[in-house]
Amino acid sequence: MSYNKTASITAETINPKVKIFDYEPCGEIARHAERLEQEMEKSPGSRPFPEITYCNLGNPQALGQRPITFFREVLSLCDNPALLRRDETRMLFSPCAINRARKIIESMPGRNSGAYTNSQGIRSLREAVASGIAARDGFPSRPEDIFLTDGASSAINLSMQILIRSQEDGVLCPLPEYPLYSASIILHGGTMVPYNLSEDGDWGLEIFEVKRCLEEARIAGLTVRAMVIINPGNPTGQVLSITNQEEIVQFCRKEGLVMLADEVYQDNVYVEDRKFHSFKKVARSLGYDENDISIVSFHSVSMGFSGECGRRGGYMEICGFGDDVMGEIRKVASVTLCPNIGGQILTSLAMDPPKLGDGCFENFMAEKEDIRLSLAKRAKTLSSAFSSLEGMTCNKVEGAIYAFPRIHLPAAAIKAAKAEGVSPDMFYACRLLDATGIAVVPGSGFHQVSGRNKATGTCHIRCTILPGEEKIKEMIPRLKEFHESFMNEFRDRS
Amino acid sequence: MSYNKTASITAETINPKVKIFDYEPCGEIARHAERLEQEMEKSPGSRPFPEITYCNLGNPQALGQRPITFFREVLSLCDNPALLRRDETRMLFSPCAINRARKIIESMPGRNSGAYTNSQGIRSLREAVASGIAARDGFPSRPEDIFLTDGASSAINLSMQILIRSQEDGVLCPLPEYPLYSASIILHGGTMVPYNLSEDGDWGLEIFEVKRCLEEARIAGLTVRAMVIINPGNPTGQVLSITNQEEIVQFCRKEGLVMLADEVYQDNVYVEDRKFHSFKKVARSLGYDENDISIVSFHSVSMGFSGECGRRGGYMEICGFGDDVMGEIRKVASVTLCPNIGGQILTSLAMDPPKLGDGCFENFMAEKEDIRLSLAKRAKTLSSAFSSLEGMTCNKVEGAIYAFPRIHLPAAAIKAAKAEGVSPDMFYACRLLDATGIAVVPGSGFHQVSGRNKATGTCHIRCTILPGEEKIKEMIPRLKEFHESFMNEFRDRS
Repeated sequence: MSYNKTASITAETINPKVKIFDYEPCGEIARHAERLEQEMEKSPGSRPFPEITYCNLGNPQALGQRPITFFREVLSLCDNPALLRRDETRMLFSPCAINRARKIIESMPGRNSGAYTNSQGIRSLREAVASGIAARDGFPSRPEDIFLTDGASSAINLSMQILIRSQEDGVLCPLPEYPLYSASIILHGGTMVPYNLSEDGDWGLEIFEVKRCLEEARIAGLTVRAMVIINPGNPTGQVLSITNQEEIVQFCRKEGLVMLADEVYQDNVYVEDRKFHSFKKVARSLGYDENDISIVSFHSVSMGFSGECGRRGGYMEICGFGDDVMGEIRKVASVTLCPNIGGQILTSLAMDPPKLGDGCFENFMAEKEDIRLSLAKRAKTLSSAFSSLEGMTCNKVEGAIYAFPRIHLPAAAIKAAKAEGVSPDMFYACRLLDATGIAVVPGSGFHQVSGRNKATGTCHIRCTILPGEEKIKEMIPRLKEFHESFMNEFRDRS
Repeated sequence: MSYNKTASITAETINPKVKIFDYEPCGEIARHAERLEQEMEKSPGSRPFPEITYCNLGNPQALGQRPITFFREVLSLCDNPALLRRDETRMLFSPCAINRARKIIESMPGRNSGAYTNSQGIRSLREAVASGIAARDGFPSRPEDIFLTDGASSAINLSMQILIRSQEDGVLCPLPEYPLYSASIILHGGTMVPYNLSEDGDWGLEIFEVKRCLEEARIAGLTVRAMVIINPGNPTGQVLSITNQEEIVQFCRKEGLVMLADEVYQDNVYVEDRKFHSFKKVARSLGYDENDISIVSFHSVSMGFSGECGRRGGYMEICGFGDDVMGEIRKVASVTLCPNIGGQILTSLAMDPPKLGDGCFENFMAEKEDIRLSLAKRAKTLSSAFSSLEGMTCNKVEGAIYAFPRIHLPAAAIKAAKAEGVSPDMFYACRLLDATGIAVVPGSGFHQVSGRNKATGTCHIRCTILPGEEKIKEMIPRLKEFHESFMNEFRDRS
């Protein structure tokens, strides 16, 4: 051999932490759906459905959700501030958007939307976010505590990078979980400490269960540093009751755990008897200030009524860390220089939207409410449809954008899955996709395998409620037909 | 104590990897400059200069570089595609931009610029980038090998995450280095293996020196996996000769090192006798294909004629890794879902700009050349000015956007720095800032301390060439005056 070939970089020799995590929302089902789509492009009519319905990803605009006009007008003007000096602009943009864009551009260093910003984000935009948080919670929020970020995922990764020192550090995470958490914990060299959500208790948290998991982890030698709570829930769709939230705050305070509050679905609440309360608000209402408890709240523009996933905007509000730690967080943030400006602007707009009295307020509210009401309708339609199927139960979709029905599969189906070397829920999801073109994520993609008293684990699928109302109406008979024939096939064999 | 206080999260108990790296471009000097600025806002006239001149960061638009009109028009239209359906739009946007925006929107999944994209970036935009690379190099480039990213820093972090397994893995990096590299290597748990650039050899690489460092690292038990080369150089401003590049390619091939080619300044070349050649082109010209050598090339829209730092757009082209490794890279990329769409669009525009025959070609070329020629002029003016100062020598700024003069400080100045507990170059930079408002980064911020035969290390400052021509003219007398009085103060004492 004449040289040391760089083929030394193989899947066997890369960072092993990269290899061990899985990330199903972009995994097997997504790839299978793409293969089908390519196949159908080449031979139209080759499948008994006209197109793939991507219910596997929470990607609102990909499924037809329209962006908020005001948001896009402001972005468009900030990209091309020369427009602000032209009269014709008033024919194409609302005065409201023109005013806001002018205000934003004027508050930027150098009146310019193309320079690196402060690593935490532009001060004036953080002020807008902080004032939005204060208005939402009724408790003060400080721009110094806000980090604008490229979506919530970057913020979550950054938090794990700060908190995790070694494999001996644990982070409590719900099961089922949004798999970004396990991926991020593994990539940063820590240990995930799972706790089970209670399907029978509307996917709420049972503190005795969380405590049991914490204690087990401590006995195993782990230092548990933080607890992740996703509210409203992903993939589970619950909105926690305020009593449950208070218990969680008390628990984290008592146990000295940083609360990592994933609150990205705060604008997606569909039921009358539940409201979104931030964990910070709950803590402050209980009389705890930042000396009592540390809370990091994550939010983004990807979900809610904005649905601007591709724009990668978000923030984290960090309360209860010392100045020295904040300095270190700023240093890590500065390694990637700054979050993207479009995302920063969008985040400020979502948290500080048009107000009563602003010219575009009515139009903005109409667009926003249209989206929320339609999502509420779709949530109800889909969960009822799932619940009506043989062997399926589906908790109410109180919030977020997913139904997460449980399927009680016939023994023969479980056996058939085993024979194919896949989990039963993956088996079901693949069959569903092949028969109907509907892509969903199996519960195992959210690591929903363990059941405390359920030796075999439970079987779920996660299906977004995002396809338009017409499309959902049209999906349901296909779902039903498939499910009946699937059950017939395997029930008979049992 | 009634509870386990979360104050357990202190600077002492966070991830120690976070604490050890430093990141000077956003560090002490930047903070000091901000403090001065706030002070001057409160008491105008309190300093002998009207404003801070931020020469510490390569942030073109913050220092007055105007964005390319075509780029901003296209971005603006893609944000607000409703404009594409309005006649009035033609009064505000060039036909060229309208056509390109239409083409981009039509190629997007769901004709929509707000959905998550493929984690590598939108296929059509990657095709544009690949065709731009092919046109630049004269060798093919494949969209499958392109990852669009949130700027180059994200791409570099991702590469380190893939390559580094433990502290026993080393990565060769130049000294002086852009400190993102050491930060990223430390954060990902690896070991930086520094090699010295040769100041006497126009900041080129001496292969025997790199080989010496590699061998030392191997003897120390490290597995050296990759070599970082920054060309054009940051902070050093050199453009490597093709002969030097060929030597480097041969060396990496022979030693089985992945080439991490930081080529973000490829459009910033100012001298007639040097041209930018990508390392991939050099390797292919030598007859090496992707079975012979692995190369990752990083580029971004932050520098060059676009200067769109805040937009966070960039790409990496990965050649010579197997399909399995590419799959793992895609998986890691999917954890943060996708790069921001604005940055994706901008990257495609920068790599596939208007062509001869397009309506806006002339205007685009005029804007682009204006920027390049003006930067070339400023590079010359600044480096001559530095060279004219007592005890200063400054290599020619062949490319990139920095002058990196060496200062031979009087012994008394070095002693005074020691007494204040700072490095001599930091001492000089702080004095400069206090006296003139000109912020520069001391060479030690780029870890320029070691000198093979220079027991005391060498002393440098990095100063961007980005302030406008008028501003540079006005800076130079201030610089001179400060330097003379500094030298007088300390020369006399020696």
